[in-house]
Amino acid sequence: MTQTVSINNRQRLQLSALNLPKRLLLGPGPSNAHPDVLAAMSTAPLGHLDPDFLKVMDEIQALLRYVWQTENPTTIAISGTGSAAMEATIANSVQPGDVVLVGVTGYFGNRLVDMAGRYGADVKTISKPWGQVFSLDELKTALETHRPAILALVHAETSTGARQPLEGVSALCQEFGTLLLIDTVTSLGGVPIHLDEWGVDLAYSCSQKGLGCSPGASPFTMSPRAWDRLQQRSGKVPNWYLDSTLLMKYWGQERVYHHTAPVNLYYGLREALRILADEGVENSWARHQKNAEYLWEQLEAIGLKMHVDRANRLPTLTTVCVPEGVDAKAISGKLLQEHNIEVGNGLGELAGKVWRVGLMGYNSKPESVDRLVAALKQVL
Amino acid sequence: MTQTVSINNRQRLQLSALNLPKRLLLGPGPSNAHPDVLAAMSTAPLGHLDPDFLKVMDEIQALLRYVWQTENPTTIAISGTGSAAMEATIANSVQPGDVVLVGVTGYFGNRLVDMAGRYGADVKTISKPWGQVFSLDELKTALETHRPAILALVHAETSTGARQPLEGVSALCQEFGTLLLIDTVTSLGGVPIHLDEWGVDLAYSCSQKGLGCSPGASPFTMSPRAWDRLQQRSGKVPNWYLDSTLLMKYWGQERVYHHTAPVNLYYGLREALRILADEGVENSWARHQKNAEYLWEQLEAIGLKMHVDRANRLPTLTTVCVPEGVDAKAISGKLLQEHNIEVGNGLGELAGKVWRVGLMGYNSKPESVDRLVAALKQVL
Repeated sequence: MTQTVSINNRQRLQLSALNLPKRLLLGPGPSNAHPDVLAAMSTAPLGHLDPDFLKVMDEIQALLRYVWQTENPTTIAISGTGSAAMEATIANSVQPGDVVLVGVTGYFGNRLVDMAGRYGADVKTISKPWGQVFSLDELKTALETHRPAILALVHAETSTGARQPLEGVSALCQEFGTLLLIDTVTSLGGVPIHLDEWGVDLAYSCSQKGLGCSPGASPFTMSPRAWDRLQQRSGKVPNWYLDSTLLMKYWGQERVYHHTAPVNLYYGLREALRILADEGVENSWARHQKNAEYLWEQLEAIGLKMHVDRANRLPTLTTVCVPEGVDAKAISGKLLQEHNIEVGNGLGELAGKVWRVGLMGYNSKPESVDRLVAALKQVL
Repeated sequence: MTQTVSINNRQRLQLSALNLPKRLLLGPGPSNAHPDVLAAMSTAPLGHLDPDFLKVMDEIQALLRYVWQTENPTTIAISGTGSAAMEATIANSVQPGDVVLVGVTGYFGNRLVDMAGRYGADVKTISKPWGQVFSLDELKTALETHRPAILALVHAETSTGARQPLEGVSALCQEFGTLLLIDTVTSLGGVPIHLDEWGVDLAYSCSQKGLGCSPGASPFTMSPRAWDRLQQRSGKVPNWYLDSTLLMKYWGQERVYHHTAPVNLYYGLREALRILADEGVENSWARHQKNAEYLWEQLEAIGLKMHVDRANRLPTLTTVCVPEGVDAKAISGKLLQEHNIEVGNGLGELAGKVWRVGLMGYNSKPESVDRLVAALKQVL
């Protein structure tokens, strides 16, 4: 093994240790992680098959079921960010040619359309202007028209701040044998969710919003009905990393190695879930609601308006209308650079028209609102 | 939004804060992360589009190019573990019907076969007993027989501890327009690699071995030739999360949001790469080699034999033959429970026949060897 090749040092940056500003993250996520979560993430790693680590995984599974209010055995964290968990629900449910009906009221509905298409679905869409939601009647008509194998809806649209009501949807789905798939990225932990009560078959979320963790390990769940359908599919799931049958051989009792879990992220997620269970999920929902109402009141007091009707407004993410004549990006830039506060800019239909303000997880507290409103008064 | 559904508390575990044993991780990975890396991982997160965070991403890109010895512009970290980066190389290079020739000399060659099949490849294999490597002549014959679009080889087989020489392989590939794809999961940072010199088109690795980081953010690179071929493919890559064209819109100059990066893992990876660049990659390779030789010498001194011929033996991962009559799992169990040392058990053909001992990244030091050998003396 003699090495005669010379070393190329052109990309060998000489860097100092990491030294970053401290920001208050009030955008669409990530939010600031709880300090105890960050501390847990610097715990020395265990091996991914160590009995003590497997116990951490069991705890994550139970607590994810609790925060989602489900008894689904197949409830795990995907070793990737929320979009990977989104793709896991698609990869494990869509078979080529399946009709997948996607409700599009924002950016993430469109992402579901893109993903489902990549897995060979015959994708149909219903849509509404960004910021609105579907009525049960609208969903019923669309189901009757398309008779889809899967109905995919975004419970909490991160791009618009609207909450899609889900009560009664599964009763409509049952008529057509349709699986109900929902995006809970911006709702889990911060907005009431009752997966089993709502008859949801597939759901995904992220760690860095309502759960108050850092991004990278993302909740995923399948109902027994969705699981049974997966076991009957012909051919392998066309995605190895996200194949839930393989994943459950690791997360379940067999403990067969699949991939090397992101150990330290799981530590953080376990800690975030422990803190949330300690508070009580219904108390966390109430806290998010209360602090959001305080935010809306304070923003209205300085003359700002909200984009979404109050009835459909998420407590976790608020779209704030940019006043006429104001350069949205200039303001969010000033908040970041002069006040170390991050808020999100509008996406798609809402680009330049709204700011997106998140009050999620650890950041859902009156102090966040006070600091933001004080800064807004200065920069507006 | 009245909530009348009662809360299900059956899965609401009441847990204490995380309290885990400290282990010396001398298995196939994860290895212990450098303490400065763990500290960096508990830094308060920034937003994934924050200018200060984008700078961290740029630094990761440059330093990954340095440790891989490549100038490939498409060199990034995948937001998942090593297997996700493996799948990224397959997803972005294989088109349905492509002949993909995989060299199988262990567990991870088989994983490449499985993955390539899921992406519609016409998979061909050449194989050797676990622990051996291919000669240039064997590769040449196989290339002539199958004329593949892609040749996939495992540079460092984590299941066997063998190193596949790669000098001269790309010259053979060029004859058939074959892309060369290699697994460097157990070599990056610890074993000499010269991607550009070797004419490699696609490569992947992990963070938790030779780089001394925690798992979850995984190096991925494509040559300009592989990139050009990707741009000419018909239809979208059938994997949204790992679509490198979308990923490069985020990692490149456009800075278009794709997914929320696992911010804290990237902090850890940046720190691990900084430390490695500070040492100098050639010095890290030499350190791994020296400490591995010390390990082999010390193990031989207590009567143990190595599975792989010295000429092909990896410095990062050693397969140690289990003496006749010894229960391999009982010994590794004792090392873990009584001495807090993790070593790996054999996989596949080598199950029960070898232990897998890793000396990687931060753990590649004489103290690791001394502690392991002292413990082995007691438990054997």
